[in-house]
Amino acid sequence: MATIDYDYKIDVIKDKIIQLDAKNIILQFPEGLKVDAIKVSNEIQEVLPNVNVLIDADPCFGACDLADNKVNKHIDLVVHFAHTPLPIKTDCPVLFIEAHSSADIVAPINDALSGLEDVETIGLVTTTQHIHKLDDMISLIEERGYTVKLDNGKGTSTGQVLGCNFTSIKDLDVDVILYVGSGDFHALGVKLFTKKPVILADPFKGESRDIEEFYDRIIRVRFARITKAKSAKSYGIIISSKKGQLRFDLALELKKLIEEHGFEAQILNMDYIAPDRLLPFDLDAFVMTACPRIAIDDSAMYKKPVLTPDELEIVLGIRDWDDYQMDEIIIHDEQT
Amino acid sequence: MATIDYDYKIDVIKDKIIQLDAKNIILQFPEGLKVDAIKVSNEIQEVLPNVNVLIDADPCFGACDLADNKVNKHIDLVVHFAHTPLPIKTDCPVLFIEAHSSADIVAPINDALSGLEDVETIGLVTTTQHIHKLDDMISLIEERGYTVKLDNGKGTSTGQVLGCNFTSIKDLDVDVILYVGSGDFHALGVKLFTKKPVILADPFKGESRDIEEFYDRIIRVRFARITKAKSAKSYGIIISSKKGQLRFDLALELKKLIEEHGFEAQILNMDYIAPDRLLPFDLDAFVMTACPRIAIDDSAMYKKPVLTPDELEIVLGIRDWDDYQMDEIIIHDEQT
Repeated sequence: MATIDYDYKIDVIKDKIIQLDAKNIILQFPEGLKVDAIKVSNEIQEVLPNVNVLIDADPCFGACDLADNKVNKHIDLVVHFAHTPLPIKTDCPVLFIEAHSSADIVAPINDALSGLEDVETIGLVTTTQHIHKLDDMISLIEERGYTVKLDNGKGTSTGQVLGCNFTSIKDLDVDVILYVGSGDFHALGVKLFTKKPVILADPFKGESRDIEEFYDRIIRVRFARITKAKSAKSYGIIISSKKGQLRFDLALELKKLIEEHGFEAQILNMDYIAPDRLLPFDLDAFVMTACPRIAIDDSAMYKKPVLTPDELEIVLGIRDWDDYQMDEIIIHDEQT
Repeated sequence: MATIDYDYKIDVIKDKIIQLDAKNIILQFPEGLKVDAIKVSNEIQEVLPNVNVLIDADPCFGACDLADNKVNKHIDLVVHFAHTPLPIKTDCPVLFIEAHSSADIVAPINDALSGLEDVETIGLVTTTQHIHKLDDMISLIEERGYTVKLDNGKGTSTGQVLGCNFTSIKDLDVDVILYVGSGDFHALGVKLFTKKPVILADPFKGESRDIEEFYDRIIRVRFARITKAKSAKSYGIIISSKKGQLRFDLALELKKLIEEHGFEAQILNMDYIAPDRLLPFDLDAFVMTACPRIAIDDSAMYKKPVLTPDELEIVLGIRDWDDYQMDEIIIHDEQT
């Protein structure tokens, strides 16, 4: 994460602690920023020596994964770095400190645009790290004579996609979509939801790339998993205790659905989802209702098929393969 | 765990569910019994088809590690298998179903007694798995002409030790202590707290063994860790979010103590404690305030010294090596 020029905003944190009269606070960083945790902790303790600053050392996967219910209610404030808030009810106040990348967006976008042919309208999306440069991105594209279209999704801001939320690009009537960011997974989601050409402009690598090859590879893996799952007689439906990843009602519905098709289903809860935790359970396939990325990104780590809820429908014959969609978690507090 | 003849007491579980009018229950098994989880889940659903039965697939290390606060408050009842309750306030009712081993205790105890010389009084302790045979154990020893002494500890029943609670043997004035169970760790704790000869009668192996060699090996490892930690300039104090392993006030005290000695200290929280979660933090040594067994049993997994709070005192020069003691967590709800 060398190209993240990160302002940890100690003054903002200090003001919030004073405003809440918080005694015990916990700092939560995604993996790539955890190396800075001690520095940030010390800076806070320097300005506020009487505050107990804890560092959460558990993995943190997103704003879906909050430390508000940890340490048995001792925590007065969670300071959560590098993600934007989701509409989740929390057990204590959470202060979000966003991470903005200083990586150049001009070169990768120019690289992306130079390869376009017969294009008039471009849909634009990016991630939290680069969204502070959205106006620059728009200008850059418009200068080249294209029309830019953007949308705010459900629970995302204008032009923003999350790994589990692509609502901001679903209804864009454009010729091509330009995704500014480094994640193949995000671009894959954009592709699956729009079925349009998608160009990835990567600010960290300084160049653009087509995601067709990645898309083809993932789709082949998913097809193989779905095919293998068609012989399954028993399913484990995985839920996560992480509030922003919990789809409890969906899990109950899937259990009913599986049983109606004559198969067995068990609901398995995990806080931290890992392949070895499934080993004691003699089930033929799993359905992931927690983070949609696990089934796709971590697929190779699991011996048995791990399906998304939509993929389960294909296995059960109630959805066509042509209707393949990325799994999304859109409005968390309605779903938990 | 083949010699555990386990009655999962479906009737008791059923009665409790009906009494509480529980809609959503979660089953929690230690690792060795998780293979039976699906069977137990199905048996409950057979007698109560309208109850949603969830299986907790996270590791479970003891009664200190409860699922009462998982699944975002959807759970009406936790059924926790194979551990005895601790005095912990829970967020929802917890039903404890104990595990009783059917393994023979006669042969290992006779084996243990046959090796004794110049012994008149024997202190007796065992674990939850075998405690239903405590009267048989006493008879067996008394028949051989010895006087048996037992005690109930703080938070344990008569003759019981836990991996983190040895209060039941601390004040026994006896010549030798007989520990009936399979765990070297428990016998080690008994040895460290009493400094008396300890014989381990292992019902699973059907024979007895001296624990001196294991004791010597562990003590040498601890000495090496303490010696290495003496050059540490910075410490991570590890706390666990698991209610029965949380010693928050102790962590704050240790931080103060370390700082008073001129060193740096950070408090790191984890729900699941694993060596790789410490890698982002550039600290010289760690102090484990969570499960006392982690520092001892998992020592080889950690590159840097992981000390118990007592061991930290030796490092800082405020406790003598001769006063080495096993770490204990005695009364949980006062400590959290």
